[in-house]
Amino acid sequence: QQADTTRQATAVLPSASQPEARKKEWFEAVSIRGYMQLRYNRLLETNPQLKCEQCDRSWGDNGGFSFRRIRLIVYGQLHPRVYFYLQPDFASTPGGSNTGQFAQIRDAYFDLGLNATSTWRLRLGQSKVPYGFENMQSSQQRLPLDRNDALNSALANERDLGAFVYWAPASIRKRLATLVSEGLKGSGDYGVVGFGVFNGQAANRSELNNGQHLVARVSYPIQIGSQIIEPGVQAYTGEYTLAKDQLSPRVKVRPDLTYPDDRAAATFVLYPQPFGIQAEYNVGRGPEFNASTDSIETRRLHGGYATLSYRARVGQQQFYPFVRGQYYQGGKKHERDARSYSVRELEVGVEWQPVKFFELVPMYTLSSRRFEDLQTKGNRQRGGLLRLQAQLNF
Amino acid sequence: QQADTTRQATAVLPSASQPEARKKEWFEAVSIRGYMQLRYNRLLETNPQLKCEQCDRSWGDNGGFSFRRIRLIVYGQLHPRVYFYLQPDFASTPGGSNTGQFAQIRDAYFDLGLNATSTWRLRLGQSKVPYGFENMQSSQQRLPLDRNDALNSALANERDLGAFVYWAPASIRKRLATLVSEGLKGSGDYGVVGFGVFNGQAANRSELNNGQHLVARVSYPIQIGSQIIEPGVQAYTGEYTLAKDQLSPRVKVRPDLTYPDDRAAATFVLYPQPFGIQAEYNVGRGPEFNASTDSIETRRLHGGYATLSYRARVGQQQFYPFVRGQYYQGGKKHERDARSYSVRELEVGVEWQPVKFFELVPMYTLSSRRFEDLQTKGNRQRGGLLRLQAQLNF
Amino acid sequence: QQADTTRQATAVLPSASQPEARKKEWFEAVSIRGYMQLRYNRLLETNPQLKCEQCDRSWGDNGGFSFRRIRLIVYGQLHPRVYFYLQPDFASTPGGSNTGQFAQIRDAYFDLGLNATSTWRLRLGQSKVPYGFENMQSSQQRLPLDRNDALNSALANERDLGAFVYWAPASIRKRLATLVSEGLKGSGDYGVVGFGVFNGQAANRSELNNGQHLVARVSYPIQIGSQIIEPGVQAYTGEYTLAKDQLSPRVKVRPDLTYPDDRAAATFVLYPQPFGIQAEYNVGRGPEFNASTDSIETRRLHGGYATLSYRARVGQQQFYPFVRGQYYQGGKKHERDARSYSVRELEVGVEWQPVKFFELVPMYTLSSRRFEDLQTKGNRQRGGLLRLQAQLNF
Repeated sequence: QQADTTRQATAVLPSASQPEARKKEWFEAVSIRGYMQLRYNRLLETNPQLKCEQCDRSWGDNGGFSFRRIRLIVYGQLHPRVYFYLQPDFASTPGGSNTGQFAQIRDAYFDLGLNATSTWRLRLGQSKVPYGFENMQSSQQRLPLDRNDALNSALANERDLGAFVYWAPASIRKRLATLVSEGLKGSGDYGVVGFGVFNGQAANRSELNNGQHLVARVSYPIQIGSQIIEPGVQAYTGEYTLAKDQLSPRVKVRPDLTYPDDRAAATFVLYPQPFGIQAEYNVGRGPEFNASTDSIETRRLHGGYATLSYRARVGQQQFYPFVRGQYYQGGKKHERDARSYSVRELEVGVEWQPVKFFELVPMYTLSSRRFEDLQTKGNRQRGGLLRLQAQLNF
Repeated sequence: QQADTTRQATAVLPSASQPEARKKEWFEAVSIRGYMQLRYNRLLETNPQLKCEQCDRSWGDNGGFSFRRIRLIVYGQLHPRVYFYLQPDFASTPGGSNTGQFAQIRDAYFDLGLNATSTWRLRLGQSKVPYGFENMQSSQQRLPLDRNDALNSALANERDLGAFVYWAPASIRKRLATLVSEGLKGSGDYGVVGFGVFNGQAANRSELNNGQHLVARVSYPIQIGSQIIEPGVQAYTGEYTLAKDQLSPRVKVRPDLTYPDDRAAATFVLYPQPFGIQAEYNVGRGPEFNASTDSIETRRLHGGYATLSYRARVGQQQFYPFVRGQYYQGGKKHERDARSYSVRELEVGVEWQPVKFFELVPMYTLSSRRFEDLQTKGNRQRGGLLRLQAQLNF
Repeated sequence: QQADTTRQATAVLPSASQPEARKKEWFEAVSIRGYMQLRYNRLLETNPQLKCEQCDRSWGDNGGFSFRRIRLIVYGQLHPRVYFYLQPDFASTPGGSNTGQFAQIRDAYFDLGLNATSTWRLRLGQSKVPYGFENMQSSQQRLPLDRNDALNSALANERDLGAFVYWAPASIRKRLATLVSEGLKGSGDYGVVGFGVFNGQAANRSELNNGQHLVARVSYPIQIGSQIIEPGVQAYTGEYTLAKDQLSPRVKVRPDLTYPDDRAAATFVLYPQPFGIQAEYNVGRGPEFNASTDSIETRRLHGGYATLSYRARVGQQQFYPFVRGQYYQGGKKHERDARSYSVRELEVGVEWQPVKFFELVPMYTLSSRRFEDLQTKGNRQRGGLLRLQAQLNF
């Protein structure tokens, strides 16, 4: 228990008289960074009943200041072929508790290079499932405050526990890294080709059936003159089991609580140099509450979004004005009774980075949302609100 | 998600050929420290029914060894005008759970300098509300093991989520820092003038109404010869909404569960060179259980404390003998049924620091406490106990 | 709250003009390391009803990928006589919650050297109770995936809150450290003689009675030629109180829910150079469900295990093939109704370390387990399964 693994570990490195060959200190092998997002959503609010559980629980009536994310990331390239990434979120509430802001895992994974150059990588643990560009793009990078309903409803918290294989040539791995580090709002490196097997109940939930989900994705960032575009396709299939704690008493369900859960999506991205486009659409089927029968049934779903953005630099400061329109028709399997949704939403905002450590996003949202479970039949809300987010990066 | 923010961030700094201008390593921008407090409260105990929920849940019957606090702090001055502070506590129990010692946020905030010298600062996030010197003084610094009932009942865990503005001249900011670093048991830097708006339901609890709390404070550390005194005044106002899970069945309440919550306090501090005085008193009103009507009503509250201390250095070792008397009459809005209290307490102890990394505090407490909710009507307990705390600072 | 303790602390060190005497940076005083264990237990499974709650909750029906442990360790030798160790686990679920992977303390302790050479040490806080070699051996080091039922049923999570004294000569302290760092699967340094007083309700549970547990242990690593053996004996005594949330409705119990909890064990270890033996046996008494009376009674318990291993190095790679047989007959006080067990199990596996940062363990388990509480009377399961674990060390 008190073994100094770092010390052991470096013993396998060649020992030489040059200073470069000295023992690596722990803080050279392991790094720490993070970010936090504080929000206030009550300005210019026209309808306090307009809410969005998956986006942000502090919308509307009785909302106030809230942390959407408090992230601390511990990571490191331990060896040319071994990388790890551990990211708890400190703004999480345990299911069933009335107190919040506990630390819960988002990412906990390690990458093993399958060949010497790690163009083939095996990723083991809890990580983002390669389904949807906006899902994989970090919230630290994304322009709109929350992910779109259409593709994000596939995977609560975007993640699951499993094994994934990624392939990308070294030059593309470098390009994917640059698309983030140069402020172009990239997705990070999920390969050009990805394939995975995972539990299918989403992050931090135990498996509830004996089948695994399968996912596959192909996406390629293409340089065209000074511009880069990235078209992609992805799909997953599996069976989702409703947890008993998410069901209203007396809602009608399949005896084994298990439903097909299949989706396919297409993605197009033009990185903002200076004009950017990000658009995705998905179709599929899954559990959805049906208000006319009071039952949870397997139903079709479809929807997508398009975001237009512009990148402006004024001295050291950066401005990213953006507009996003989105549409979704289908169920949300992670919510009560696999709640049924019809969403149309338009958002206009700007991300302002006076320094790299701080960002402020004001965003105006105009929304029409139908969200129905057994306890909220006929619930449709329309309205507008101004949302504010202050983000600290460290 | 894998973007190296630190690396990005430092790109905005001027690049020069001097070694000082090199890229800052993550461990130079971010620091980690912390402390833990282990307690045993059962020695010389005369009444095992004498308890204090807000102070320390391990008093009395069936108590044993317990951690009162396990703190890990990640913080850094990222930029001359950007500072952050992230402090989880690892001795926290989620509401409704039977297992403990989970990590929960205490502080998560960032300071933005509003002018070049940061004499005006905007603090965003969850942080201590500037109400009460002892509330703001860190538990790592405080002499008595727990905060006084009178002012601490204003804010469970002393903190809330919101936006605060602090002003102090540079010379006073330096003095406030010195009052901590020199072992004088200062409060830390909450400015000479502070103003804030916050949710009002206390740390790690969601907002439950549509009104924000407001707070203001003025406090000034005055050098008089070799001595420093710090008089201060502070007040807050708002509406507090009782959470349903804190109510006994059948207790009578206002229909909206919402009560006025207003307080004002005066503070006087003489820093221990070598004699110290710390005294505070507050008055106000808020929800309180009334045993004669079985209802929670808006009632007046008042109370305060005075602590006398002495600082002695023997070689590298430090000794701080102290005595505190306290009084409180009023409700505790965060406890079951806004429990009603009458408290008289006298404490005598000494803090011993053989090295800066370790402190031991034996403290004898003589107490008379009435604490009544619907389930404990007529409950008044008197007694004495010896309390021990071992503290590790890293 | 914002005091820089590290800075304060180093002020007590002698100040000189040599560079060695400069202020210690925080990352020189404090280090961070950790590990994670990802598992899949469903291959070659012959009986999905064969389960083991204390070992691994992802065995059998509806199991999938799971993290058994995600550990982050913050530790440091702050002063020649002050050491601290803080280890949360990020794969923990709060009692009563349906969501997992929250951060919960495993170790939080500090060691104070009682003499100048720290051969006598006082350990305060939550740490492993010195009872059982395999209990004290880190899961990062252990060959079989889970600890044996016989000795591990003494202490859920192997730990408790209390005060412990350890003694060992400096040469033996060095040997105990080497037995871990050289890959010999040692237990870490719990002294040659250990004695402790602790709550007795196990890690992260509050004390539920007014008596403390006592423990004592003697163990000595003896060098015989090029081999090292370590015989040991240990025992503890105390009273264990069943928590109300672990009882089935209508199970019969003692009125105060409190039962004697006493055990003694013998240990023999031959460290693997290259053949290794690790064997332990314990006897005792404690609460156990009796299916013939539907009551929880004080009953005798006994059991143990023997593990044979071999250490092979092939270039930089390490292989540890092993086989373990184990037996247990008795109750598990931490489980529902102090569940009654009869366990016979044989395991064959190999730990493969291609690099020090990564380990893979395939292990085949052949098991016969009776585990009965009021809700599972007559439950006996037999079967085999192949278990896989991927471990990342950082």
